[in-house]
Amino acid sequence: MSDTNIDKPSIATPVGTVVDGITFIEGGLGAVKGLRCAGVPAGFRRNPQRKDLALIVSVKPAVATGVFTQNIFCAAPVSISRTHLTRCAATDSASPLEDGGGARAVIINSGNANAATGEPGIETAIQTAQLLAEHLGCEPHQILVASTGVIGNRLSIEPFKTGIPKAIAALGADDGSDLPSGLAAAEAIMTTDTVAKQAAVRFTVTQSDGVQVTYTMAGMVKGSGMIQPNMATLLGVFAIDAMVTQEAMDLALKQAMDSSFNKVTVDSDTSTNDSIFFLATGGVVGKTFNTSCPAWPIFSAALRLLCEELARQIAYDGEGATRLVTVNVTGAASEQDADLAARAVANSPLVKTAIAGHDANWGRVAMAIGKSGASFCQENVSISIMGIPVCKNGLTVGFDEAEALRRFEQPEINIDIDLGAGLGAARIWTCDLTHDYISINGDYRT
Amino acid sequence: MSDTNIDKPSIATPVGTVVDGITFIEGGLGAVKGLRCAGVPAGFRRNPQRKDLALIVSVKPAVATGVFTQNIFCAAPVSISRTHLTRCAATDSASPLEDGGGARAVIINSGNANAATGEPGIETAIQTAQLLAEHLGCEPHQILVASTGVIGNRLSIEPFKTGIPKAIAALGADDGSDLPSGLAAAEAIMTTDTVAKQAAVRFTVTQSDGVQVTYTMAGMVKGSGMIQPNMATLLGVFAIDAMVTQEAMDLALKQAMDSSFNKVTVDSDTSTNDSIFFLATGGVVGKTFNTSCPAWPIFSAALRLLCEELARQIAYDGEGATRLVTVNVTGAASEQDADLAARAVANSPLVKTAIAGHDANWGRVAMAIGKSGASFCQENVSISIMGIPVCKNGLTVGFDEAEALRRFEQPEINIDIDLGAGLGAARIWTCDLTHDYISINGDYRT
Repeated sequence: MSDTNIDKPSIATPVGTVVDGITFIEGGLGAVKGLRCAGVPAGFRRNPQRKDLALIVSVKPAVATGVFTQNIFCAAPVSISRTHLTRCAATDSASPLEDGGGARAVIINSGNANAATGEPGIETAIQTAQLLAEHLGCEPHQILVASTGVIGNRLSIEPFKTGIPKAIAALGADDGSDLPSGLAAAEAIMTTDTVAKQAAVRFTVTQSDGVQVTYTMAGMVKGSGMIQPNMATLLGVFAIDAMVTQEAMDLALKQAMDSSFNKVTVDSDTSTNDSIFFLATGGVVGKTFNTSCPAWPIFSAALRLLCEELARQIAYDGEGATRLVTVNVTGAASEQDADLAARAVANSPLVKTAIAGHDANWGRVAMAIGKSGASFCQENVSISIMGIPVCKNGLTVGFDEAEALRRFEQPEINIDIDLGAGLGAARIWTCDLTHDYISINGDYRT
Repeated sequence: MSDTNIDKPSIATPVGTVVDGITFIEGGLGAVKGLRCAGVPAGFRRNPQRKDLALIVSVKPAVATGVFTQNIFCAAPVSISRTHLTRCAATDSASPLEDGGGARAVIINSGNANAATGEPGIETAIQTAQLLAEHLGCEPHQILVASTGVIGNRLSIEPFKTGIPKAIAALGADDGSDLPSGLAAAEAIMTTDTVAKQAAVRFTVTQSDGVQVTYTMAGMVKGSGMIQPNMATLLGVFAIDAMVTQEAMDLALKQAMDSSFNKVTVDSDTSTNDSIFFLATGGVVGKTFNTSCPAWPIFSAALRLLCEELARQIAYDGEGATRLVTVNVTGAASEQDADLAARAVANSPLVKTAIAGHDANWGRVAMAIGKSGASFCQENVSISIMGIPVCKNGLTVGFDEAEALRRFEQPEINIDIDLGAGLGAARIWTCDLTHDYISINGDYRT
């Protein structure tokens, strides 16, 4: 919702939009009751003015869950947070949290990924959790840590020693009204992102006792490059001010991933640091959500909606991107075939450069689905680009090139492919491939 | 051997180099006895001066074999040539060719791929073979056809009607001395290639009767973009002036592919038109090669050497490339794991842009092997870039950045990765990813 890049029109869903009873509202994590946020400059980056430490604190212990990168070269904070989530998990779904259960905070630095840093890197991640736990008066395993930035450089504990007190002093209010503090946190986790990415939604549940309760769910993410999550995803924190069982948290996050962040690709590369956390602060009084309660559908739909919203924002803000590209495959022999075909198109440098060049070059789309491994016959394939049919039954269809050029001015480009082989469907979000991707990544360290 | 791009130093193996008794010589297909070559402008392209029709004629029917793209959206000429190769194959390996057996010519146009063109495209490919067969007085199935260029545009037969007589009139001598005619053919198949790519080798066999016979083997290829062959490959024609059995031709080509063109990637995209042909002209009198003769090892080694030479040239001339990048993986748990890891590095846009930026950013190499699917433990991994150790046992190693910048001036960049997990090894060739790749592909059709 904070897509404020002046060079590109926003593709964010407008505030006030209602989808299936869920309303988009202003702000991000700052809108969630029971949560306090901060984002401060802490010296992880050369530029001392740039915010590079985000702190998200739950006033009460929060039922927490997470998903992580599948990259073998996973970063130290991924190992530590995975362990901490296991230790702070609620073991009894009826009474969610025992003593020492639940997460109290997420702390994220940008500028250094603490990846491929071996034992010293693990030590820094452990010390970070210990330091913050001392300040908050909780157990170290109630702290979740994440890092993003350059891989392979030692991460010192020193900036945390001065940065944590600074971030604690900057923490916003916990009543869901402190939107600037949530934005500051979202800004602090940016690397090559050009805009801070956050979103928030609100929905009302009528309980079995007739009481109506309104909940706020929100999230912030960072993306930009090294983006092709696989069963886990990039860096993000989501939260809701409800009470939720551990089982419901785990299931909702897993299901939301499958249609959102696991369907984004910027450059086919998978980060060493991908982590998404989801916290339930219990900041609003109401019945506890579980997977069999009547409000489960709207709860899980809200998380899916938020994740899809931010997945689109990540694709649109892919490194050097000027366009959000949505690849829709239908008529595949299976869901898996649909995903293979859509992903092959979305990852094809030739398709992505054609879009950057405003060229409705469907031959390259055909090439990509043909190499994808999906089963189909070329004479059953139809392709439309931006709603213009360009290929029918495997053959070229004449189209108005001037009209195509006009449609290329839109911030969103849709590529629709019908494989004519079955009922499988998939949607993948990506972006175009421009000179700026090369510039950003050719001199990232310099 | 004709790497004449003035902007980049040549990486071609110098003429006179001897490898395992096989000597690199000047020229390409023009050096093969029994073969006549031509490359002429025939009107397939907008620029009427540009050569766009290559013709390779074997004076006698040649035992022929080929490998083709695995892309489902395969082009019409691929379908037709596959059928023709089956029909002209020698059925008895002792006496290679019956009446109507063997191939007489390969004809290749550039500028239009005749791909995704349906029945009309098939008709054009069939008519092309018929037209040329009438001129040469042979059966249509003795003609092999190939096309390269834009996908999805109808290919007219008209330029062939005028172009074939023109090409026949331009055919060079068949005594292995007409190097310019071979170069003209290599030039006529170029698309975004910046240099014509050809190579030739010579080796001598002492027969069981004591007679020494010298053979010449040569090839030409085109590459540049949409290059990640998969069990088959890009566009190329290879020939030897020996008599060879069908079985030996098939096996030698298949084996040579595995270590050469199937190990090249420019952009992870797989063309609809990949075709490689290999002809034995019988232009030199000698015993017929077969898979059990004493000269089989040198015969197959010569083809492998030629294919590797041209595979390297293709990677180095990848669209926008300034560097040949060789990724060597050793210590993998299996050959397949080694290939997965090497290919993930070679296809990573982040690794390739780092090389374009002269940045020895081994963190991106670690990221790529970590996402590849290969099995290993990060604490056993070592990485060198350009011979400089940058990662040992999963940890960063300090290195002299000034020395690294000096080594980045070389035309070849080696990335050596030891996974510490077994004995599997693989080598993949690729290139850096530069602004020019975006420019070339952002306005290919305009």
